[in-house]
Amino acid sequence: MKKNVLIIGAGGVAQVVAHKCAQNNDVLGDLHIASRTKAKCDAIIDSVREKGAMKVPGTFESHQVDATDATAVADLIKATGAQIVINVGSAFVNRHVLEACIRTGAAYMDTAIHEEPDKICETPPWYANYEWKRREDCEKAGVTAILGVGFDPGVVNAYARLAEDEFLDTIESIDIVDINAGSHGKYFATNFDPEINFREFTGTVWSWQNGQWQANKMFEIGREWDLPVVGKQKAYMTGHDEIHSLSQRYPNADVRFWMGFSDHYINVFTVLKNIGLLSEQPVRTAEGQEVVPLKVVKACLPDPASLAPNYTGKTCIGDLVKGTKDGKPAEVFIYNVADHKEAYEEVGSQGISYTAGVPPVAAAILVANGTWDVGKMVNVEDLDPKPFISLLNRIGLPTRVKDEQGDRPVDFA
Amino acid sequence: MKKNVLIIGAGGVAQVVAHKCAQNNDVLGDLHIASRTKAKCDAIIDSVREKGAMKVPGTFESHQVDATDATAVADLIKATGAQIVINVGSAFVNRHVLEACIRTGAAYMDTAIHEEPDKICETPPWYANYEWKRREDCEKAGVTAILGVGFDPGVVNAYARLAEDEFLDTIESIDIVDINAGSHGKYFATNFDPEINFREFTGTVWSWQNGQWQANKMFEIGREWDLPVVGKQKAYMTGHDEIHSLSQRYPNADVRFWMGFSDHYINVFTVLKNIGLLSEQPVRTAEGQEVVPLKVVKACLPDPASLAPNYTGKTCIGDLVKGTKDGKPAEVFIYNVADHKEAYEEVGSQGISYTAGVPPVAAAILVANGTWDVGKMVNVEDLDPKPFISLLNRIGLPTRVKDEQGDRPVDFA
Repeated sequence: MKKNVLIIGAGGVAQVVAHKCAQNNDVLGDLHIASRTKAKCDAIIDSVREKGAMKVPGTFESHQVDATDATAVADLIKATGAQIVINVGSAFVNRHVLEACIRTGAAYMDTAIHEEPDKICETPPWYANYEWKRREDCEKAGVTAILGVGFDPGVVNAYARLAEDEFLDTIESIDIVDINAGSHGKYFATNFDPEINFREFTGTVWSWQNGQWQANKMFEIGREWDLPVVGKQKAYMTGHDEIHSLSQRYPNADVRFWMGFSDHYINVFTVLKNIGLLSEQPVRTAEGQEVVPLKVVKACLPDPASLAPNYTGKTCIGDLVKGTKDGKPAEVFIYNVADHKEAYEEVGSQGISYTAGVPPVAAAILVANGTWDVGKMVNVEDLDPKPFISLLNRIGLPTRVKDEQGDRPVDFA
Repeated sequence: MKKNVLIIGAGGVAQVVAHKCAQNNDVLGDLHIASRTKAKCDAIIDSVREKGAMKVPGTFESHQVDATDATAVADLIKATGAQIVINVGSAFVNRHVLEACIRTGAAYMDTAIHEEPDKICETPPWYANYEWKRREDCEKAGVTAILGVGFDPGVVNAYARLAEDEFLDTIESIDIVDINAGSHGKYFATNFDPEINFREFTGTVWSWQNGQWQANKMFEIGREWDLPVVGKQKAYMTGHDEIHSLSQRYPNADVRFWMGFSDHYINVFTVLKNIGLLSEQPVRTAEGQEVVPLKVVKACLPDPASLAPNYTGKTCIGDLVKGTKDGKPAEVFIYNVADHKEAYEEVGSQGISYTAGVPPVAAAILVANGTWDVGKMVNVEDLDPKPFISLLNRIGLPTRVKDEQGDRPVDFA
């Protein structure tokens, strides 16, 4: 049993986390939010107050912190009395915030792999480069650390585990498909921080197939999917966090990630990449200024949070898991459909932020009530998925299952 | 009669100018080259020495100068004894180098309109914004200033005048067409300084039609041309310097400029422009760094000079002039075809630089021998084109004419 939450970060996902924590502050206790820019935290708290999102009267305070400074974060954890840290800051801060949790005993959760600013797409499995090196330290300190508990990674890991626990006897392949069929009306924009978004697609596309890592190029392998609600959509094999943990639990299964991209997105991406504008390595201008091109591209693109008010349409993210049941081939598609406009109306963020921000709050609630407070470092598939999925059904991300018995909601409450 | 040449600039065009001056140093006298980076001047002189380009033994010296500092340029003119300044530096330095020539009495020539770094595509006619404001000063000082004496502007202005003098009685339209049918083998590159190149295409496309300025957007108006040697090519109406002077001499004619662009170029340009990466106005990165996006794009793209060794194919640039002859409709296409590889073999530059760099040397020779030493400010169409075209025939840029009497060389020597 733990309580009092410190949110690290103040972007679009943090906005969702803040609203959802507020909606559940009877369980979560005092709420705190901290980022490099305190004004962004204040704006989020204002938005929570405007929506009247706090379930019961309680604390919600903002703080300034450099989240790459573990000591500063640890001090803030102590000062706020937070026993749960939801880290939705930049992926560059993860290892420092984790360090602060290990030092203070607070539970840790994040939604994406740690990244170092000057490195792109390191060797697989990615979690082994930073996070898993702290497994022993977490166990020794009794620290609950739930890695990658957004939607993907996160809920999709729970879906894989659910397929294992409830639907199939053996698992031969896990294809995670992420389609955003929404429209933001801009010439071009990324749904997350452009810096992180592009970094996902500039390196090698790692997948786990035939018991080994397979390397491909971005946009090398595409196929059309026909999914519930969003219909026929082209998606491309993409490197993604969850492959790097699921492949350890399911070494005999093929584990792939597919992300939907429009031809327009691919064209823009290809132009920027080929010219070198997506590089994280600095170039020198004729005037002698050292500049990281990717940071300039980011400065030119719309702020992802600014897309929310006019975003329409739906997302569909799910796992197609194939294997056997009772000795016969079987498959199941476990998925969620979210709506951009509904998300904005509820929490002031677009659907992509919503799907990423609701799951860590569900995890925080499960840590707060003891269900997931396991006192060690885990990926989501290491935990019982049923309470997580049932809770998500109640707080905004309902799960459905489609198999030979039809397309239906699932719940375990 | 003037002698001793100071070249301002050390880019791809300056390289051509240096070689061509060396090949004619019996007429031109001492040679000097100056730019912000002296090492680039030294490299050009080394290349001249390697090719054994000096016609007779003589001086060729390098100098460091900030060409936006008119006093520094004037001091250098005095120190070198240069009576002719060929300015092929950045378009941002033109008004300062002109000022230095007015102060010292040296003849001035450039190949492009003056530009201020923070302004794009000012109101037409462009020459009236900066250059023509100094007409009186030039006349008073007896300074010969030949504006825009590259290929386009420059030779194409002489072609228009040649049509007036030799081929037609009245002129109804002048369509200047610039096709580069060469291939540099890179994903994307500009043939000139990317900063200047893109600035040409991000503003309004001004043309002179029906006796007034007409405003269009870039790539709004395109048509296929069928030209000698390079064949069928798509070209788009583009804003360009020479329209702004030719429209004054031929106010009753339509004056348009057409530049060839591949679909690939247009796609890359469109992506960069729509995202805002071609902006000359600074943006601020998340880290607080002020950066001009266009300068970062420039830093990422290949140095135009680096394209030369592998550039193959030909350029075709000419004027299609329509009007009447002996009371009947008539038209003439006056043009040059240049070859990238031949240019590289002769002077170490690609064909685009070659076509821009040879004409100002021809003009310098005509100033040196008195033919064009007019003691005032002129655009090229104000001068007798025949000695210029005849000289260009001899030093690397032969002119041909195509009309109802066939396709043939022209010469007036």
